[in-house]
Amino acid sequence: MTDQRIFNFNAGPAALPLPVLEEIQASFLNFSNSGMSITEISHRSSYFDDVINDAVERTKRLLGLDDQYHVLFLQGGASLQFAMIPMNFLSGDQSADYVNTGTWSTKAIKEAKIQNKKHVVVASSEDKDFSYIPENIPFSKDAKYVHITSNNTIKGTQFADFPDTGGIPLIADMSSDFFSRPLPMEKFSMIYAGAQKNLGPSGTCMVILRKDLLETANPDLPSMLKYSTYAEKNSMYNTPPCFGIYTIDLVLKWIEEEMGGLEKMEAFNKEKAGLLYDFMEASNFYRATAAQGSRSLMNVTFRLPSEELEQKFIKEATAKGLGGLKGHRSVGGCRASIYNAATMEGIKALVAFMEVFQKEAK
Amino acid sequence: MTDQRIFNFNAGPAALPLPVLEEIQASFLNFSNSGMSITEISHRSSYFDDVINDAVERTKRLLGLDDQYHVLFLQGGASLQFAMIPMNFLSGDQSADYVNTGTWSTKAIKEAKIQNKKHVVVASSEDKDFSYIPENIPFSKDAKYVHITSNNTIKGTQFADFPDTGGIPLIADMSSDFFSRPLPMEKFSMIYAGAQKNLGPSGTCMVILRKDLLETANPDLPSMLKYSTYAEKNSMYNTPPCFGIYTIDLVLKWIEEEMGGLEKMEAFNKEKAGLLYDFMEASNFYRATAAQGSRSLMNVTFRLPSEELEQKFIKEATAKGLGGLKGHRSVGGCRASIYNAATMEGIKALVAFMEVFQKEAK
Repeated sequence: MTDQRIFNFNAGPAALPLPVLEEIQASFLNFSNSGMSITEISHRSSYFDDVINDAVERTKRLLGLDDQYHVLFLQGGASLQFAMIPMNFLSGDQSADYVNTGTWSTKAIKEAKIQNKKHVVVASSEDKDFSYIPENIPFSKDAKYVHITSNNTIKGTQFADFPDTGGIPLIADMSSDFFSRPLPMEKFSMIYAGAQKNLGPSGTCMVILRKDLLETANPDLPSMLKYSTYAEKNSMYNTPPCFGIYTIDLVLKWIEEEMGGLEKMEAFNKEKAGLLYDFMEASNFYRATAAQGSRSLMNVTFRLPSEELEQKFIKEATAKGLGGLKGHRSVGGCRASIYNAATMEGIKALVAFMEVFQKEAK
Repeated sequence: MTDQRIFNFNAGPAALPLPVLEEIQASFLNFSNSGMSITEISHRSSYFDDVINDAVERTKRLLGLDDQYHVLFLQGGASLQFAMIPMNFLSGDQSADYVNTGTWSTKAIKEAKIQNKKHVVVASSEDKDFSYIPENIPFSKDAKYVHITSNNTIKGTQFADFPDTGGIPLIADMSSDFFSRPLPMEKFSMIYAGAQKNLGPSGTCMVILRKDLLETANPDLPSMLKYSTYAEKNSMYNTPPCFGIYTIDLVLKWIEEEMGGLEKMEAFNKEKAGLLYDFMEASNFYRATAAQGSRSLMNVTFRLPSEELEQKFIKEATAKGLGGLKGHRSVGGCRASIYNAATMEGIKALVAFMEVFQKEAK
C-alpha cells in the first residue's frame, strides 16, 4: 500500500514511461478535444485514423522499414501467433525450423505440433537449462521459415546477434525486447511482439510482416486468423484494440522524441543492465544465471546463496518500493525486468538495496 | 473541437459511464495503492486476481448464473468467435442452425462456411432488408447448436424474446445488447459479446459458456482457439487484456450498484428508446427503419425525407455536441446508439434538436 509510485521490475505487464501514463490520464475524459475518451471513439473516425497511422509511421521510421513491410496490430498475444504462424505459412509437406531457447520457444513449437505441421527443432539450449543462446545453427535447406525467440524473459537470455539463415525467412518473437535496440531488418521476414513489456498494455500484439512472406500464406483460413485480413484493412477488419494502439503510439513517440531513437535506447538499456551485471559479478553473493555473452539486457535473472535469502530479499525489496523482483514461478530465484521504461534512478535504487542486503546478510 | 464532453451516440466503441471513466482517470498512476498503473500490474498478482474475480462474480450475480456456467474473457472480438464456435463445436458430420438477421449474422455464417462446417440458415429476414426478427423458426432436429445475433446494430433490430429451440443449445452474439436487460439464462448455452458497446473498451470479448456444451468441444485445436484453455485457467493461460477486464469490472459495478441491476437497467433503456421512437412516430418527418415489434432499444436507426436532409442533420447535430449519429457506412441514413451509458439528458437533448431541425426544414 503506497501513495506514491514504486520502482516496478515486473516482467510483464510492466512499467510504462511516466510521461506516457500522464498524457493518457490528462486526456482520458476528452481525447484530442473530441469530447470523448479514447475508449469511446469510433475506430472509423478520423481521430482514430490519426492514432493508428501515426503508430505505423513511427514504427517504420524507428525500424527503417521500407514499403516491403506491413505494420499490423492483432490481438491474442504472442500465444495466438504461435498458432497463426504455422497455420498461415506451412501447407502440405512444408516444414519449418525452430530454435528452442526456453519456455516461449517451447510453446511456439507445441502449437505447430498440435496442428500436425512439419517442423524441426534445429537447435536447443535445453541441455544447460536454457542458460545460453545456441550458435552455428544447422538450418534445414528446405525450411519454409526459421523461428526464434529473441529474448527469454524466464531464463534471462537474449540473442545479441541474429543468425544468418542463408535466405530462409526468419521469424522472431520479440515480445520482450522489441524496440529496445536497432534491428538488422534485412534479416527478418516477420517480427511479432505482445505489447505488455516494452510497448503498452496487454491485449495488443504488433506484427511486422514482409510482403513476400505474406504472399505465400494459405488462403483458406478463418478471417481473423489470416494475416492478409489485417494487411488489407490497416488492422481494422473488425474493431481493433484502440486503447492499446493509442498507448503504443505514445510509447513510440516517447522513444522517438524523448529517448532519441533506437540507438540511444539501446545505449541506455546497455548502461542500465551493465550496472546490475557488473555489480553482481563483483559481489560474490548474487549470481547471474545466464551465460556470459547470452545475458539479456531486459530480464536480469539471478540467484542468492539460498532460497531463504531469496525470499527475504524479495520481501524486503517490496517493502522498500522495489516491486516485481520474484523470478518466474517455473524457475524461482530473482529477476529484475528492466525494459525501456525502467529508469536509471530505479536501477540505482535496486543496486543500493542489493549492497545493503548483502552486507546485512553476511 | 470541444473543451467539454459531447453526447456520444457512437455505435461502438461507444459512450461509457462517466463515473467509470473518472475512476479510471483518478487511479491511473496508482491503482489500488499498488504504486503502479493498472496497465503496469502483473496479471499473476493479487491485485489483478481481485479485479478478474470481481468481474466474474458480478457477472454471475447480475445474470443469476449457477456453477454450470464459465465466465471467460477472450480477445479478437465477436469476429474471432464467429470462427471459434464452429471450430470448437462442429466435427465430422455435425451441423448447426444459423438465423440470419443482418451483417453480423452473415459474417458468423461465413466463418462456418470457410471451415467447411455443415450449417443450415433456418431463417432470414433478408427478404425485407433485415428490418425484422423472424418468428416461428423451423430448427433442425439434429442441429448441434443454434446461432442468433440478439441485436443488430446496423439495421436497428433486436430479439424482444428468445426462440425456444426445443433443447438444442442456443448460442447468441450479444455484442451490442449484453447486460442491457435480464436474460432467461436457462435458454442459453453460450453468450458472447465484444466489450466495446455496453461493457468497456474494444479488445476484450466476454464469453458465458455452459459446461455441458464445453464438454462436447473438439480437443485437437490450437491452445488459444480452444474454450477449454480459458475455462481451465480463469482466462489467464496467457496475459489477458487486463485494462479491458478492469474497465468491464467497473462497468458491471456501476450497473449493479448505481443502476440497481438488470431489471432497472432494462426499464431505463426502454424509457430512453421509447422517448425517441414515440417522438419519431408522431413526427411525420423522421422514420424508424425497423419494423414494430423488432425495434432495438440500443440502436435507433432512422431516415429523414431525403439524403440531403440527413447529411445536414448529422452535420448540424455534430456541431451542437450530438456526435456519432451517422448510419453505418453500408446502409446510410441516421442512427442513434443509446447503450446503457447513454444518459436521459443526452436523449432529451437529441429529441429537442430533432424537433427544432424538423421545424426549420419545413
